Amino acid sequence: MRASVLFSAGKDSSLAALLLEPYYEVELVTISLGVTESWRIAQKAARELGFPHRVIELSLVGEAVEVAMRDGFPRNAINMVHRAALEAVSEGAQAVADGTRRDDRVPMLTAAEAVSLEGRYDVQYLRPLMGLGRSAVDYLVSLLLEIEEGEDIEKADYEADIRALMHDQYGQDAVGQVFPRHTQSRIIGVKR
Amino acid sequence: MRASVLFSAGKDSSLAALLLEPYYEVELVTISLGVTESWRIAQKAARELGFPHRVIELSLVGEAVEVAMRDGFPRNAINMVHRAALEAVSEGAQAVADGTRRDDRVPMLTAAEAVSLEGRYDVQYLRPLMGLGRSAVDYLVSLLLEIEEGEDIEKADYEADIRALMHDQYGQDAVGQVFPRHTQSRIIGVKR
Repeated sequence: MRASVLFSAGKDSSLAALLLEPYYEVELVTISLGVTESWRIAQKAARELGFPHRVIELSLVGEAVEVAMRDGFPRNAINMVHRAALEAVSEGAQAVADGTRRDDRVPMLTAAEAVSLEGRYDVQYLRPLMGLGRSAVDYLVSLLLEIEEGEDIEKADYEADIRALMHDQYGQDAVGQVFPRHTQSRIIGVKR
Repeated sequence: MRASVLFSAGKDSSLAALLLEPYYEVELVTISLGVTESWRIAQKAARELGFPHRVIELSLVGEAVEVAMRDGFPRNAINMVHRAALEAVSEGAQAVADGTRRDDRVPMLTAAEAVSLEGRYDVQYLRPLMGLGRSAVDYLVSLLLEIEEGEDIEKADYEADIRALMHDQYGQDAVGQVFPRHTQSRIIGVKR
């Protein structure tokens, strides 16, 4: 069975793909919101992982910026994009997956939303990291992946494009106020 | 790293163990509540799976029966036993696991309880099925396990001993009223 894994080049989505590999025919799918070319980072990382990769473009970054500006924080905007991404990938798919994990706050579907996605699209929704805490994820990443981490690491997540458009429309101060700084990770190699 | 997987001989705990096998040194641990010898079913199933197996006895079945009789349903009693089981297995362990999955109602730790368990025992708490719905579990079981299913399948879960003691103390009618009938599964072989 094929599983389409939403892929940002970060360690979580990379690990999710590797954990599914023994049981599914994995393909990586990166969402482009059409502002930056951050999907190229994912394309390169997918080559390192050795999985086929494709890009789906979604047209909702303007709406996401408006939601984030109105809220003053990015959570609802990112969840909105993630739900749209899962629905786009689920169209015609047998199984879709992402790298969300137990202690994530965003993006995150509730259990009811997960059941609803599966029912509406007749798809398996797989979250291989959902039963893992931070130390288990760190352990598995250390077994399976080579990564680089830091605040300025670029990856192909929704945030990159939302920030870029917000910067163009509202300036860098708005971006700094809405988006907390946090450590990013990007996969640079795989151990297998 | 060793992972101690709570094991009932059912398909969920068997699948959890198999999903961890590539990354952890798996041992299976069955809880005996001291009423029946249902742990022997798990011992035999563990041999089929090819993992080392041990049994931990816990003395709280009387309390569990009282809770279930007071409630009129088994959920809180089973959760109480499961929390005690996880704590007993976590003592001195590096990683503990169970077969709970996304759509289970019982036994089930909240995310906050999971974080608390990990903090109190300095242990990884792993739930490999937590990100999977029914159809994904069924798919993986069909790939990896041979099982038998039915209402009268015996396995080594907490319910067996709670039911047995309730039967002795309150009669079969009480058992029938408190415990809903549901399909059980037991693993009879592994495909690997």
